[in-house]
Amino acid sequence: MISRRELEDAQQYTAERLAEVGIVLTAAEQDAIEVADFGLSELGETGLQLLVYVNTDRYCAKELVLRPGQTCPEHRHPPFDGTPGKEETFRCRSGRVYLYVEGEPTPQPSCVPPPGAYTVSREVELGPGEQHTIPPGTLHWFQAGAEGAVVTEFSSASRDDLDEFTDERVARTTVVA
Amino acid sequence: MISRRELEDAQQYTAERLAEVGIVLTAAEQDAIEVADFGLSELGETGLQLLVYVNTDRYCAKELVLRPGQTCPEHRHPPFDGTPGKEETFRCRSGRVYLYVEGEPTPQPSCVPPPGAYTVSREVELGPGEQHTIPPGTLHWFQAGAEGAVVTEFSSASRDDLDEFTDERVARTTVVA
Repeated sequence: MISRRELEDAQQYTAERLAEVGIVLTAAEQDAIEVADFGLSELGETGLQLLVYVNTDRYCAKELVLRPGQTCPEHRHPPFDGTPGKEETFRCRSGRVYLYVEGEPTPQPSCVPPPGAYTVSREVELGPGEQHTIPPGTLHWFQAGAEGAVVTEFSSASRDDLDEFTDERVARTTVVA
Repeated sequence: MISRRELEDAQQYTAERLAEVGIVLTAAEQDAIEVADFGLSELGETGLQLLVYVNTDRYCAKELVLRPGQTCPEHRHPPFDGTPGKEETFRCRSGRVYLYVEGEPTPQPSCVPPPGAYTVSREVELGPGEQHTIPPGTLHWFQAGAEGAVVTEFSSASRDDLDEFTDERVARTTVVA
């Protein structure tokens, strides 16, 4: 649960970070900025701000904005509607983001996850202009560096409601009260 | 046909316009900027500069850069591999772009197409932060306004080699000599 104030602060932070990297939003888009606390009520630690540009039944594009050290918790995108599930490409626009994906664990990863269930630790570090594609159905989580991050996500069709989180306390819904 | 000099000038112009809107490219991406004269050897009039971020068998994302008044000629994306063909969303980042699509002709359109075969004239004007989605298999062309334009394209999988142009003189291949 987050407060109305936290929601509005996070939306304003997001709009400012996007403006800094030259991304122009319409007024309707500014109002539609999503803030996710993943049900943990610790938005600054585990959370994500999103702006969805388009999400058809074939492709999707979003901007993801993270505060310094903010983490999107470990999850995977399962198959649906006869597709293999969401395939996604993260492209860092500004700041730095550390992706953790399936594969050989990185010996000394740059990030420590927040308390909870995290099982994959192959690190992929992305700075501005760098990108990485995550295959459908595979586990991943990510954390922003000390300056936060703006990350563009290109993908196949997105169904956030189907995301499967490793930590059973985590949910994609955010309650504002 | 374009000269090596025209190609390099167009690549540099593209990199500069992208940098102006805060888009950071890797060195490999700068070298991979595509310049298309559509076989007409009149690049400033009929042409397009492109950077492909990613093109999987499910989705694609590109930046399109147009010089002032430059036109991408009329074409459509046909069905392939059991899909309805490429569906695409144009989002204007900077400058102004005029899309012409199927539907009721706009009485006094803002642009005049270059000499050639142009049959659709429903105008959709996009400024920074505005976007429009074009259904698969439908005719469209576009022209930049007086300041040129940077346009991000989100889409399903892209197969430029299959594009069907209204003007039979037009081709997607560009010869550099």
